Amino acid sequence: MSVQKNDFSKWYIDTIQKADLMDYTPVRGCIAFKPDGYELWERIQAEMDRRFKETGHRNAYFPMLIPESFFQKEKDHIEGFSPELPWVTEAAGEQLEERLALRPTSETMIGHLYSDWIKSYRDLPVLINQWANVFRWEKKTLPFIRTSEFLWQEGHTAHVDEEDARKETMQMLQIYKEVVEDLLAIPVYDGQKTPSERFAGAVDTYSIEAMMKDGKAVQAGTSHYLGTKFAEAFDIKYLNKENKHVHVHTTSWGTSTRLIGAMIMVHGDEQGLVLPPKMAPTQVVLIPVGPWKKKPEIIEKLDEVFAELKAKGIRVKLDDSDQSPGYKFNEWELKGVPVRIELGPRDLENGQALMKARDAEEKEAVSLEQLVASIENELTVMQTRLLEKAKQFREENSHTHIDTMEQLKNHIEEAQAAGNVPGWILSGWCGEDACEEQVKEETKFTTRNIPFNPPAEKKVCVNCGNEAKHSVWFGRAY
Amino acid sequence: MSVQKNDFSKWYIDTIQKADLMDYTPVRGCIAFKPDGYELWERIQAEMDRRFKETGHRNAYFPMLIPESFFQKEKDHIEGFSPELPWVTEAAGEQLEERLALRPTSETMIGHLYSDWIKSYRDLPVLINQWANVFRWEKKTLPFIRTSEFLWQEGHTAHVDEEDARKETMQMLQIYKEVVEDLLAIPVYDGQKTPSERFAGAVDTYSIEAMMKDGKAVQAGTSHYLGTKFAEAFDIKYLNKENKHVHVHTTSWGTSTRLIGAMIMVHGDEQGLVLPPKMAPTQVVLIPVGPWKKKPEIIEKLDEVFAELKAKGIRVKLDDSDQSPGYKFNEWELKGVPVRIELGPRDLENGQALMKARDAEEKEAVSLEQLVASIENELTVMQTRLLEKAKQFREENSHTHIDTMEQLKNHIEEAQAAGNVPGWILSGWCGEDACEEQVKEETKFTTRNIPFNPPAEKKVCVNCGNEAKHSVWFGRAY
Ligand SMILES: [Zn+2]
Ligand SMILES: [Zn+2]
Repeated sequence: MSVQKNDFSKWYIDTIQKADLMDYTPVRGCIAFKPDGYELWERIQAEMDRRFKETGHRNAYFPMLIPESFFQKEKDHIEGFSPELPWVTEAAGEQLEERLALRPTSETMIGHLYSDWIKSYRDLPVLINQWANVFRWEKKTLPFIRTSEFLWQEGHTAHVDEEDARKETMQMLQIYKEVVEDLLAIPVYDGQKTPSERFAGAVDTYSIEAMMKDGKAVQAGTSHYLGTKFAEAFDIKYLNKENKHVHVHTTSWGTSTRLIGAMIMVHGDEQGLVLPPKMAPTQVVLIPVGPWKKKPEIIEKLDEVFAELKAKGIRVKLDDSDQSPGYKFNEWELKGVPVRIELGPRDLENGQALMKARDAEEKEAVSLEQLVASIENELTVMQTRLLEKAKQFREENSHTHIDTMEQLKNHIEEAQAAGNVPGWILSGWCGEDACEEQVKEETKFTTRNIPFNPPAEKKVCVNCGNEAKHSVWFGRAY
Repeated sequence: MSVQKNDFSKWYIDTIQKADLMDYTPVRGCIAFKPDGYELWERIQAEMDRRFKETGHRNAYFPMLIPESFFQKEKDHIEGFSPELPWVTEAAGEQLEERLALRPTSETMIGHLYSDWIKSYRDLPVLINQWANVFRWEKKTLPFIRTSEFLWQEGHTAHVDEEDARKETMQMLQIYKEVVEDLLAIPVYDGQKTPSERFAGAVDTYSIEAMMKDGKAVQAGTSHYLGTKFAEAFDIKYLNKENKHVHVHTTSWGTSTRLIGAMIMVHGDEQGLVLPPKMAPTQVVLIPVGPWKKKPEIIEKLDEVFAELKAKGIRVKLDDSDQSPGYKFNEWELKGVPVRIELGPRDLENGQALMKARDAEEKEAVSLEQLVASIENELTVMQTRLLEKAKQFREENSHTHIDTMEQLKNHIEEAQAAGNVPGWILSGWCGEDACEEQVKEETKFTTRNIPFNPPAEKKVCVNCGNEAKHSVWFGRAY
């Protein structure tokens, strides 16, 4: 196992492979999601889907192949995506007349169809979501975080006016924030992207941004107000109450399997994965220890606890394999199982078991009568504790005292020299693309977002020193 | 609306479009699943997924793009699928060194990975399922039934020996049968495919076959015993208990969005869709009638019923729009809503409402006190009734008295002349490909399957008159 502190990337790759979450494949940048990895996605899906439906959205499915001509209709969109598109050029032994792109996102196909589906104000809002695979042929890939094919959901909604569309954009961003914080125990900053970081074709892009343990940022979800740009490109108009044909206002919003990668990079430690209890495929593992084979009461007791936990809907495993306890401990820690219970002859005599939370230093003795209740409680407490720990890490590595490029460079150098993570910097920004670009060139820090609730008010642009229009998070990003 | 009896295909297309289940797209053979269509798939998914997990399977996800060289490894497989493959030849502005196929099915990619994942008998069985989009560039397409892109699940399992693999193959076929009969109310014959109809690369293929209202067959699910063919092609071996490296035995099994089409063709009628209650996005619609706007008690009562049904988990809608009752009746019948409730001033005075089951001729007066209970009961009864009706239709159109090609041709001619459906024929078959081929050429009837429980024992081959090895279902197929 690689040491997390020394080489975070290597630690990450080692961890997800050893924990059996994924495997590489011979197709460039495409991974296989193994069952323990895919189950993480299923939990994210279930919770997101529930929230989407609660807020009136329905799922649909659109073709994966998109005609080249569709991309040409919105010029920002094609500019942004064309460098990354894979193309189908032949099928069933024949050359196609028009190349078909593997969808990188579906605004164009959906825009084309919405122009047929939407006729009157009575048809609005259209609130549709799609669960799908998408493709972006990127140069550098990293499992879960950036892959040529990935899984995601993409919401596509159409509204009578800007106000309604902007409300939707914000509502979905807030749902993302809640799910990512509550389920994945990842604290995020919600805010607005700068123009240079906008989705190709958006009027405004909003994001939630999370800090990994190496201090880098992962954009964990985005929500776009698209204005009438796609409505104009695809002629999506409706007859309003005043009997006029006007363009709809559209939104789109997405989260993807990169959330799995973010969760691992936020909570993982030197021993491997650390899974928030709500996410863990296995929440509790029961392990007999000592000369337990000579004492059948031990397995009997564990069987009983197993059945009780199961009945409560807790995902539990009993590891009665022939491996040594030490081997088992390592194995289950690597897989990030939140709670481990050990029971040996001595424990049984004392009417207790040992409980070890994955993120705790010490084991805890728990009376057998209280065991099930204690486990339940620990699962709840740990979920919150992981979020709090991640928040604390983020606060420790968020810096608001930097006002100039020189200070920024010094900060990064000093952090690197000391073996610390440079983290994120909240700095002032005048609003000029050029200043943003300059920071990126000199430090590799990019703007993450303009947080809705910045922890400080910054007054001057970190690059030009002019008056700041915004306080912006800067950081290295995945 | 087209008349079902006169032009079944046109009726089908009209119905699914008017009921808002799908839309055509500019990509050949690719449809968009609109929310009411996609929700049908979500219900099938939920039930299948539950059963797969109950039987120890887990989901995973594999790359959609498959290198050309993978297909070459199993010769039957490439022969079967190569005429239908779309190919990615360029990506991100560059020609690929090797063409990548859009998966038509994933045996090859999964075989490649299983050869890494499986090392010892302790790793077996591997029980994995994938929910995914797949591509088959077919000449003739029909929404839901046969599309260039479709959605499906594909199970891929690996076992220590033939016995275990064959048990799995049968288990999954039985799960398909149960779900299709219980959820979709479609009766099916389970049986074995003849060699000419086998999956490309299978040792044995089993299917469930359903009869549509035009008498044609839809293959509603297949389960394959693949022997060691893919294990040999992809070198999937394990160390057995005797310390020898031997090939695994694999299976694969799939059902797809064509089940949606089958359900519509089995239950639909001249008024449009007829949805089994377990499948219907909306199970009950409440409609105020007469001068209801002058009597607020009517909407009050319907609101109350609405809330009670909702609390019981019944999917209910209240249609208080300004359209006429007749318009609303048509609309909701077209969409296949199982139960309609009408309440007008006269009804309210009499303490009753009118209930109309979608497949019933007559409305029924139900006392308001009993209304919710009656609706609940009707939903249960209707689910069973639709299955029974479909069974009855199938029995009426299944013929077991035909022993020669001449009789078969006469039967088909007479049915067509009388405007009846020719249905299915259970005939004897000697086991020779040539006889099967001859029947197909002369009648367009193909073998559906060799049913496990044939309704009769046929003694002579319908083509050559030699001794029959099997009693086989013949019919026109989608
Ligand atoms: Zn500036
Ligand atoms: Zn014969």
